[in-house]
Formats: sequence, C-alpha cells, structure tokens
Amino acid sequence: MRVLIIGGDGYCGWASALHLCARGHDVAILDSLVRRRWDSELGVSTLTPIRSMAERLRAWEHVSGRTIKFFETDATDYAALCDAILTVQPDAIVNFGQQRSAPYSMIDRDHAARTMINNTLGNLNVLWAMREHAPEAHLVKLGTMGEYGTPNIEIEEGFITIEHKGRRDTLPFPKQPGSFYHLTKVADSDQIYFACRVWGLRATDLNQGVVYGLHTPETSLDPELINRFDYDGIFGTALNRFCVQAALDHPLTVYGRGGQTRAFLNITDTARCVDLAVESAPAPGTFRVFNQFTQTFSVLSLARMVERVGAKLGLKVQIDHVENPRVEREAHFYSSLNNNLIALGLEPVLLTDEIVASMIESAQTFRSRIDRAQIMPTVRWKREAVNVAVEAGAEERAG
Amino acid sequence: MRVLIIGGDGYCGWASALHLCARGHDVAILDSLVRRRWDSELGVSTLTPIRSMAERLRAWEHVSGRTIKFFETDATDYAALCDAILTVQPDAIVNFGQQRSAPYSMIDRDHAARTMINNTLGNLNVLWAMREHAPEAHLVKLGTMGEYGTPNIEIEEGFITIEHKGRRDTLPFPKQPGSFYHLTKVADSDQIYFACRVWGLRATDLNQGVVYGLHTPETSLDPELINRFDYDGIFGTALNRFCVQAALDHPLTVYGRGGQTRAFLNITDTARCVDLAVESAPAPGTFRVFNQFTQTFSVLSLARMVERVGAKLGLKVQIDHVENPRVEREAHFYSSLNNNLIALGLEPVLLTDEIVASMIESAQTFRSRIDRAQIMPTVRWKREAVNVAVEAGAEERAG
Repeated sequence: MRVLIIGGDGYCGWASALHLCARGHDVAILDSLVRRRWDSELGVSTLTPIRSMAERLRAWEHVSGRTIKFFETDATDYAALCDAILTVQPDAIVNFGQQRSAPYSMIDRDHAARTMINNTLGNLNVLWAMREHAPEAHLVKLGTMGEYGTPNIEIEEGFITIEHKGRRDTLPFPKQPGSFYHLTKVADSDQIYFACRVWGLRATDLNQGVVYGLHTPETSLDPELINRFDYDGIFGTALNRFCVQAALDHPLTVYGRGGQTRAFLNITDTARCVDLAVESAPAPGTFRVFNQFTQTFSVLSLARMVERVGAKLGLKVQIDHVENPRVEREAHFYSSLNNNLIALGLEPVLLTDEIVASMIESAQTFRSRIDRAQIMPTVRWKREAVNVAVEAGAEERAG
Repeated sequence: MRVLIIGGDGYCGWASALHLCARGHDVAILDSLVRRRWDSELGVSTLTPIRSMAERLRAWEHVSGRTIKFFETDATDYAALCDAILTVQPDAIVNFGQQRSAPYSMIDRDHAARTMINNTLGNLNVLWAMREHAPEAHLVKLGTMGEYGTPNIEIEEGFITIEHKGRRDTLPFPKQPGSFYHLTKVADSDQIYFACRVWGLRATDLNQGVVYGLHTPETSLDPELINRFDYDGIFGTALNRFCVQAALDHPLTVYGRGGQTRAFLNITDTARCVDLAVESAPAPGTFRVFNQFTQTFSVLSLARMVERVGAKLGLKVQIDHVENPRVEREAHFYSSLNNNLIALGLEPVLLTDEIVASMIESAQTFRSRIDRAQIMPTVRWKREAVNVAVEAGAEERAG
C-alpha cells in the first residue's frame, strides 16, 4: 500500500515509517522537521545522536534497498499538504505530525496556541485534504490514552453504551484531557469522527499509551538509523527519563506520590500497531478507535523496577518524590480495554528487566551527551498564587 | 459589576450588553466588528439596518444616560485582549466573540480553519489572559445545545453520572457536534473545564438553543439601537428565516422532513440568562454548565406555526421541503433539562402567535431590504460524489 506518514521524523513516526517500509509498503514521509527546531529553541536535545533526514533516508536505502520519499513541509501548510497527497495518492495517511508534549503546551499562552495550531489545524487540514483529494484513503491518527483522563469506570475503546433514565445510546466515551496538548488530541478525535459521519471518510484513532524504549528491529540495522530518546523535563516520558537518570546516578524524579497509573507500550509495538491498523482499513464512513497500549503501571512501580534493575547493573539508584508539576490525581482507579489491537493479532512486547537493562545501557552509551540541567521539570500547571482550597475543590469536582 | 462583553456587536452580544448595562452593570464591549466584514465578504446583510458601533453607543448614551466603553479589537489578538482586560478589570467576562454559523464553517477548508482560529484560539486566549490578569473574574461563555447533538438519552446539563460494570463516575456529557462550528464550541468547553480544574478559574458555560426574535426591551428604546436579524442561508436560523420568508411570499424552506427537534429561546431571554449567570458567580475552581433554552420544537412545527400566523395576517404561506444541506437525523428522540436557569429565576418568554406575528411584521417593515438570492441554502455538508450507502451507514453508526 502507498502510505503517507505525516511526522515521520519524530520518535514514533520514524520507527513506524521504517517498519511499514520493511513490511513492504510504499512509504513517504511528510515532516517540516519542526520538532528539531523546538528542541533548539528550548535548549534540549535527544540523548541519542539522531542524523539528518537526508542521512537517515540514505542509510535506510543502503540497508534495505528501499526508498522513502520525503516532503519537507508541514500539515499546517494546506497547499503543500494537498500537493503531497496528490503526488503520493496514498491508500493510508498516518498522522503523527503533532506537538506531543503536555509540558510544552503548558509553558505559556504562546506554546499552548502553537500546540493547538500545529495539532488541530493540522488535523483539520488533513481531513479537508482527504475530502478533496483522497476520500477513499484510510486515516490512521495518533491520539493518546491521556484523552480519557482517569475516570472511575473502565475505559472502553472510544465509545460507551449508556443507560440513562430508561433509555440507552452508544456515545463517545467522555474525555477529561489534562493539558492543552491533551485538549488538542480530543478536538482532533471529535473532528475525525465528524468527518467520518458526514463525508464518509474512514479512520482509525489510535489512543496510544506512554511509549518507552529506543531500538526497534529496523532502527537497529544501522547506527545512522538511531531513533530519538528524550529525557528532558519537557519531552522526556516517565520510563525513558528514569533510565537516563539511573545511568547518570541522578535520583529518579517521581512526581508526587507516584500513584498515577498510566498505560504503556514499547516503541516496537507502536510501529506494529500502526501497521496492523494500516493493513485492516475499515469500511468508508467508519470511525474506529483502538486503545493502543499493552500494560499499565503506576509511575512509582516503574521507578522501583528501574531501581531494582539498576542495582543488578551495579548502579546505586535513588528515588526522589519531587513536587508534582502537574495537576492530576496521584491515587485513582485505572482500568482500560485494549481488545481491538489484540484481536488484530498484536503480540505485545512486555516490559522485562532485560528491556529496562538495555535502556539503561543505551543511556550509559550516550552518557557524555546528557545535559543534567535538562532533567528536572520546569513547567508547572498551577498558577503561582493559586489557593490550595481551590485546588482541592477542583480535584474533588473532577472526581 | 464590571462586565467585559467580547463580541458585543453581534446579535446576542448587543442585546445582552444593553440589558446588562440597563441592569446597572458597568459594561465594556470588545469586538473587532469582524462579523460585518464576513457579511460583506459573503454578500449577505441583516434584514434590519443596524447602525455603526459609534452610532449605537451614542444612541444608548442618549436614551439611558449610561456609557459603554468600546475596544475595537479581537480576542485572537492576545496582547490587545490583555490590554483591554487590564483596563476594564472585569468582575465578569462574557464571551460571545465567535463565528456562530454552522454553514459558514462548512463552506470550505478556509472557512473551517477561520472558524477554529476565531473561536477556539480566541477562547484559549481568554483563558490565558484571565489566568495572567483576571484570575478571580467569572467567565460566562456562550456554547450551544448543538454541542450535544441528538443522543437517544435525555441531555443533562454538562455532566452525567454513568454506572458502568459495577462502578460509577460523573463525567462530561458525551458530545456529538454536527459541523466544524459546533466542533469549536466543544473544544472551547473542554478548554474551559480544564482551566477551572487546573487554574481555579470560575466559569459558566451557557449551552444555548437557537435564538429567535428581534426586539428586546432595550433595543426597542430607539431605532438606532435596532439589532441584527439574519435571514440568509448562512447566518439565518430557522424561525427568523421562516418569518422573513412568510413576509416575502417565499415558501418556507424546511430542510428535509423537518423532524429535526431543537431547543429554542427568545433573544430577550438570552440577555436575561446572561445576566442571571453574571449575577450568580460560582466559587473559584467551578465549571458550571447551564442549558440555555426555554422550549423545544421540531423545525416542521415551527413552519406550521408561521403558516398559521401568516394566514391570520392575510399572507399565503407555503411550506417547501427542500433537500437537507446538512447531514443530520430528521427524526429522533430529543429531551433536555434546563433546570439550572429556571432555578436562578428565569421566567421564560414563551413563543406565542403574537410573537411570531410581530416578527413577520418586522420583516414586512424592512421588506425592501431583502435580497431573495440570499434565502436558499448554498452550503452542503456532503461530498458531491459520496456514496449513499456510506451515508446511511454513518447515520446508523452515529445512532
């Protein structure tokens, strides 16, 4: 199949582009490389020395014999997006082209606005461009499990049947996004569902958990193909950050009590899930939602795992409970279904001590590249002077 | 109280600004007059000869002895918005500053994008500006009953308690918006709820029904204060449009079967509801949702009412079922609560034959201003070549 991957220079996008290409699909990448500019603006950097897109694509052609076409442009540029779609004539469009950091979206008004424009205007453009130029294509959109928040009921896959006052309907699962970034993902999902209902587009919304891991079978083929690995306070996600901290003898920074439970998956499974979605296009008019994760962990339990594995590697790993920069519940019910991808044949790569060890060892390999100043969280959700009673009330109300 | 009304030049905003001022509040209007430019761009015009903002404010000062301060700028201009808030130091900010037409948002990609930027970037700006400069103020935001769509269960006010697999939670009521315009309103609501939870802001989301009527006690005080009255295919809403059509001996354009049931209220009640919301600010951290309507009608029942009243006025009113330009269910369950505003003391102005007659008579008064070419719907929701089977499937899925 012809697959256009928007955001193919990013962490998940790059791994998925190579995997889909290795699976025999005809892959093109559309990316403005804007994430590299955001890194530069914030003074942060991937742990791993990722190569330029030209180098990456040359190396991939060398090891695989296969070419990936590259459009250096942005989904927020509607004309350029349409041109790329007209050129590629994709059977599937995979949209990873989004600002994916909650802290980034909370820095200030400008970063919130930029996240909204990049993500939701980009998503709107993709939908209109499909309507105009590729109405039969299948949109595979990366959402996040964070769209749901932490409701006190089991999280279904996108829809829930509600009985209410003697009547019943199946409706979109209620969402409680926890940052301006998460808000954009909810808005995207709503737009896509609408486009399927009204225009007959077909789409799969992948509500992805927190991704961990560095190597995939494809990125391991050549050092030039190495993926990004973020450990900083803005883009670094929990497990990746802990592994870098362990390698550096820096205490693991658990936010608050660490009881926050989230859904996780390995980067290898991200690429596989995207492939499973691409290879099973739904009927026109269908909006399909998959919860894309394989396991759930509390943040503290992940820190304990890294502590234990670190000890085996001879590292002295310490756990610090730092003040939580976010506003979120630190102890809550969490249960979610992920039946759809399992039914399509996903065989999860589960988190093992060996995987954690290899992540810590990767961090040790690139230890000289680590900037300790980037590790601690710098973006706070709360207003400085906010009344403590107000926060307690808001948390209660949210519950 | 000091009240800043964003979008105070519009249909609901102008009526509300005058009513709040008459109630003794210290009112300021922020409006870029962009709606007048949109009219001009589309070649449409209000039935009534509305005056310039300068003329409006001069007339109001003349009849009431009260001054309304005016900021000619836009909520999408963050710096200008912050300046206005710092100048006014509002106790309440009422945000009507939004592109409010579903057909406008469906014209093409540019109009969808413009609607999103105007509404949701504007809303995001208001929230950040409040966080920075007016965290104690009360945000009163105009949403729409259209955010909910037409679920097969009773529509609660913002939240619903769901029992699911032996557990229970109170969660945001699921939304099924029916246009890019409606999608922006849902995104706005999600952002506001978030800002209340995380920043301790206080807000009331007014999910308003379809507004009808021309005069309010305040706009009736002087012809210079006359409100806008839209009858065209883009901005005209059902009952207003029918009254103009009746006055013009143009058949009433019922979309499809006309079984679409919606919530309605009189423009006088819009202004009163906004005042009730402003005068009852909730506690910090609270996100309060009111369903702001007084009655529900099917579109066909409204057309029949106009037909009957028109006959009494000696008009020959004909009802035409035109092809529905929208994708929506034309026969469905519809029931919604509106307890919150009634509990605050709203005494509804119910729709009577006299009110319909006065609307038709207003249309007759300004008959010479009507452009017949603007009456029919021009914007279609569907793709031209969309497969009929797909639409049926999408409709079924939505149900």
